[in-house]
Order: sequence, then structure tokens, then C-alpha cells
Amino acid sequence: MNKFLLVPDSFKGTLSATEVCGIMRDTILRLIPDAQVLSIPVADGGEGTVDCFVEALKCEKVFCSVSDPVGLPVEGFFGLLPDGRAIIEMAAAAGLPLMEGRLDPLGAGTYGVGQLIGAALDRGARSILLGLGGSATTDGGCGAAAALGVRFLDEAGSAFIPTGGTLERISTMDMSGLDPRVGETTFTAMCDIDNPLYGPRGAAHIFAPQKGASPEQVDVLDKGLIHLSAILAQTLGRDVSALPGAGAAGGMGACASAILGAQLRRGIDAVLDTVRFENLLRDCDLVFTGEGKLDSQSLGGKVVLGVSLRAKAQGIPVVAVVGGADEGISGIYDCGITAVFPINRMPQDFSVSRYHSRENLSATTEDIIRLLRR
Amino acid sequence: MNKFLLVPDSFKGTLSATEVCGIMRDTILRLIPDAQVLSIPVADGGEGTVDCFVEALKCEKVFCSVSDPVGLPVEGFFGLLPDGRAIIEMAAAAGLPLMEGRLDPLGAGTYGVGQLIGAALDRGARSILLGLGGSATTDGGCGAAAALGVRFLDEAGSAFIPTGGTLERISTMDMSGLDPRVGETTFTAMCDIDNPLYGPRGAAHIFAPQKGASPEQVDVLDKGLIHLSAILAQTLGRDVSALPGAGAAGGMGACASAILGAQLRRGIDAVLDTVRFENLLRDCDLVFTGEGKLDSQSLGGKVVLGVSLRAKAQGIPVVAVVGGADEGISGIYDCGITAVFPINRMPQDFSVSRYHSRENLSATTEDIIRLLRR
Repeated sequence: MNKFLLVPDSFKGTLSATEVCGIMRDTILRLIPDAQVLSIPVADGGEGTVDCFVEALKCEKVFCSVSDPVGLPVEGFFGLLPDGRAIIEMAAAAGLPLMEGRLDPLGAGTYGVGQLIGAALDRGARSILLGLGGSATTDGGCGAAAALGVRFLDEAGSAFIPTGGTLERISTMDMSGLDPRVGETTFTAMCDIDNPLYGPRGAAHIFAPQKGASPEQVDVLDKGLIHLSAILAQTLGRDVSALPGAGAAGGMGACASAILGAQLRRGIDAVLDTVRFENLLRDCDLVFTGEGKLDSQSLGGKVVLGVSLRAKAQGIPVVAVVGGADEGISGIYDCGITAVFPINRMPQDFSVSRYHSRENLSATTEDIIRLLRR
Repeated sequence: MNKFLLVPDSFKGTLSATEVCGIMRDTILRLIPDAQVLSIPVADGGEGTVDCFVEALKCEKVFCSVSDPVGLPVEGFFGLLPDGRAIIEMAAAAGLPLMEGRLDPLGAGTYGVGQLIGAALDRGARSILLGLGGSATTDGGCGAAAALGVRFLDEAGSAFIPTGGTLERISTMDMSGLDPRVGETTFTAMCDIDNPLYGPRGAAHIFAPQKGASPEQVDVLDKGLIHLSAILAQTLGRDVSALPGAGAAGGMGACASAILGAQLRRGIDAVLDTVRFENLLRDCDLVFTGEGKLDSQSLGGKVVLGVSLRAKAQGIPVVAVVGGADEGISGIYDCGITAVFPINRMPQDFSVSRYHSRENLSATTEDIIRLLRR
């Protein structure tokens, strides 16, 4: 019992996945000083995605100046692996925190995201993992496309960079200027939601309000996305109107799929593929996973399940350390979970226990390790 | 991983030790149908003590009619082992539940307890474990002594059976009629408190109020116990005035020590000795213990500690399953505890979680077993 893989989700509301990894690793090493502990904090594509891979793969973090959602300069970044793979989180150039206090749902765009992609291409990346999520934008990804050379023209034939509020102005798209390296590159887009581009469950109605949009602005944005969908179908022959996840990150999923040719994947699958999880499992004694709450919904396909199914295939035991384990989860044992341990050391409501998450997680990890090496 | 010993305390306020054993055993057998599970619910000397031993040792439960605290007939009982050891809980003849709605702090006595002892002697018992606790009496054990042949005389030389309210009337004690079998018998008294016979921490001041005594009656009882202490010293040459535990069960500890020659022991030690714990440990794979709350106080000598120290001496792993584990308990690992697992599956206050104790205990036991046989 010497080699451990830590592959936790965040404990929502208390600990990030990176913090969970740090606490568990410190605890294991205190008890087994010569243990080999590999941390793979699981990202969902949103803010912190690049850092998760920096942690898991010790990859280079490249910084570059790009445009923020309204065109002001901001220091963006991406992760770069020696083998030419890059990891980009769109939140680095279009994230909500960048717009704190000055949300602009109609005027915000993803131009900086395209600049990040261009910078990664400049560094030789030909396989790009693009984290969708946490954006302040609802431009369907047109800004990013524009930064990569796509020209959007209005009825008068004038080129412009669309934002959420001006999508309806697009009359034609000119693809001739698209960076040719895009065609040579494999794009994978990470997103953990399956919302469509528009409509009642689409990007505007579901996510724009938290980006500052009024009900009237939501309608403008939704109409713009409907229009964009038609333009993409007409220009590229690609219908993203019903694509699950096209509505991720203000519709970024739409252009990522239609223009970049990106495959949309769940965060956990993208992470496990990118770190080449099966190779790591091979000489591993135990996998720790975990999340804030394990309930019957978790059986539908989140982090714990994604990890356990792959570990099960190789016969590696998996322990889930969780903030809470609801009843009705007995099905998880069949999915490869060996055992589940909630971290609640005392009978305390979450309003109290949330402030003890660190100690509780450490104590629970310690007892699991102590039991394992009894 | 096939042979398990279950040695839990009760989970105060939710589950009796016997219930804890039942839930754990059922869970283990569901996962490992051919497991050998021995249940030793730990008694503290109070109500339920005999049943704990009946459960642990499959001993005979002998019923016999005796006097209740005010002299009415009640069906008492004791446990009898094939080797001639008997287990008596004084609550069976003098317990608070027997007096529900008719508490009589001055008039209640332990005559029936002496009758239980006599009945055990009749059945050949020459080693008697006497559980102190849960009594409705404060007679210092004089009633029990009287039932065994001790004569208490007042100033006029008249014999009487003292109760809490008449202890001060004792002028002399005549030991000549004491059942001679008492002298041939080894008595061990179980009690988990160390209160002295009298005084501010004594039987009257601390325990008599919950037996219905008014402040004035507490004073009467305390004076009576002071008087009894002097009589015992004068008659038998035994000073119980400072004996820790003499104040247990309305001062029953005093006569148990001075007249029966009983050694006062903590419940856990008496239980482990009686079941010959060291023999049971020999071919055991794992010991489960547990209690309601494990805190730094627990390190002072309660069930979990008593079990773990003895198991450690034989190198058997011990898992404590608990209602809550406070911080500052890291010392327990040095005492032989392998690991501690609280049963709180969800972050819930005790006011909520107490109603989920059964499911939570079962789920926690299941995950421990699953981890062990990974």
C-alpha cells in the first residue's frame, strides 16, 4: 500500500479539488512518508481548469496578453505540455470574475478566447483542450472565431466582431481568413452541462441572468443565438441547434463545435483521457476520489462514477471520501466503488461543519489509511 | 477476514449496546455470509446488564420472585453460567422503572437485591458479578444485607430492615446470621462512577434527587449514609467513607464492599474479564468497538479504550465506530485503536441524525467491511 492516485471533484461550497488533493496528500505522507501520491484534481472546464492540469501533469503555464470580454487588455494563460497539447480555460479571457461590477451581457464577447487559442497554436500546440464554463459572455463563440480569422459581415457587407447583443446583425460569414492551423488541430471542449444553444433550456434563458441580463436582454440574446444557429447551418452545413452542450459558456459550445470541430466531452472524461488515467492506474494500489455529496444522482455520471468505472476495469480499489452520502447509493458498489466514507466527524449541520472541512477530511483520510495498513 | 468481535458501548440517546451489536452483525453477515460474529454488548452495571451477558455468553436467565423496593413482589432474574458464575443487576429488584409513578426515596430499599443474591447462591453460584446502577434506593445496601441475614438493631435492641430514611436508627449490626455462603463467594461489583458514599459528591446529593428526593430528604439520606459509614467501620473495621464508587446505586457500593467483600470494577473491565476477552481475541481477525461520542475524555478509561488496550496487547486491529469523534483524540491510536469511523453519513445536527442512527451505523459498517476485503 504505497502508490495512491487522488482524483477528487471539488467539495462544493467548501474545498476546491486542488485543496482536497493537498489535504489528502499531506495526510497520507505524514502517515506513509515514502508513499507515492499523484494528485489529479478534477476540473469541469471552468475557472481553475488549467491549474488542475498544471497540478496533475506539472505542465508549463504560459502567460499572454489578450482582450477581456469588452476589449480591455488582461493577462491570460494556458497550459502547455511537452508533447504539444495545450489546455485553455475560456474563463481566463472571458470569465465572470473579470467583469465583476461591470457586467455587460449584450456587449461582452469571447475575442480573447480566440487570442488564447492563437497563442497556443503559435507555441506549436496541435491538440487543444478547451474548458468551457464560467463565462461572462453570450456571443455563441463568435468573438473567438473572429480572433481566429473568421469575418462576420452585416447586411451592408461591413465586417464586425459580434457580441451577444449584435448576433442578429450577422448576415454572412466569410471563412476564408480562418487560421489554417485550426484545421490541423484537434479540439476537445470540456463541459459538464448539456444545455442546447437556445430556447427555454438554452444559454440565454438559463445562464444569461447570472451574467447580468434583464428579461428583455435574455430575449435579445436568445434571438441572436437562434439567428447564429441558422447562419452556421447555412455557411458550414453544421446544425448545432439540438447539440447537447452547445449552450455551454454563452453558446461557445456552438462555434467550438461548428468552426473548430471540437468534440464536446464531460470534464471528468477529458481529464482522465488527458492525464492518460489507464496508464497511471497500472501500478497504483488505491484510488481516492470524492465530491461534496454522493447521492443517487451521482450515479448518473459525475466524477466519482467516472473514476470508479475506469478503475474497476483494471481491478484497482477506489475509496470515495465525500461531504455527504445520501441513502439509495448502494448501486455505486457495482460501478467499482470499494467503499464510501463521509467526512462528518461530528453530527453537525452543514452550516457548522463547513468550517471544519479541512480537519474532517484530513481525519477521515487518516483513519482510512490506518485501517488499510492495519 | 472472517472472525469478528463486536464490543460496543451504547450510543447514548439513540442505540443500546445490544442494538449496536445487532445492526453490525446483520450488516457483516449480509456481506460475508459465513463470517463468525461474536457480540459482546458492554453493560455498565445498570438496567440491561444481565441481558448483555445473556447475549454475549448465551448464559441461562433465571427468574425468581423477590421484593421490589417497597416490599411488593416482583419477578426478578439473574444470569447463570455453567461454570457457576452468576450475573445480577440490582436494577432487576431495585430499579427506578419499578417505581415509576410511586417514587419513595426514604422508604425504598434493596431487600430484593439480597434475595437475588440468595437465589444465585441457592443455584450454586460462588462467583457473583453484581451490577450497581439504575436503583430507586438510597439505603447503602442495608436491605440487601438484611436479606442475607445481617440483623440491624435500633437503640432499643429491636431488629428492623433499614431503608434510606431509617439508616440513622441503626444502633448496632449483628453479623452472626449472615449466610455463610457469602464468605465462600467472590463478589465483583460493576460501577462506572467513582462517587463516594456521602458528602457533596455522594449518593444522596448527586443521585437522590432523580429518585424523587426533596432537598430536605437529601439531607436526611446523606446523614443516614454518614451514620452507616460509622456503623460499618465500628462493626467490621472497614472504612468505606472515602472509597470511590461506594456511592454507586444509592450507596450499595458501601455494603457490597464492606459486607460482601466485593471488589468494585468498571463495567468494561468486569465485562471483558467475565467473557474471558483474551481467549476470544486469540483467533479473531478484527474487533469492532464504539460509543456515542469519542472525545479526549474517552481517553480516560471508557469502553473504547478498555477494549483497545487489551486488543493491542495481542496485536488485533480495533475499529471504533462512533456517533461523533471530536478533535484532540489522536492519542487513541497509541492505545491500540486502528481507526475511527463516525457514522454521520450526512452533515446533520444530532437533532436530525439521531433518527437515522440505524441506517447510518449499518452503512458505515458496510463500508468498513467492503474496504477491508477489497
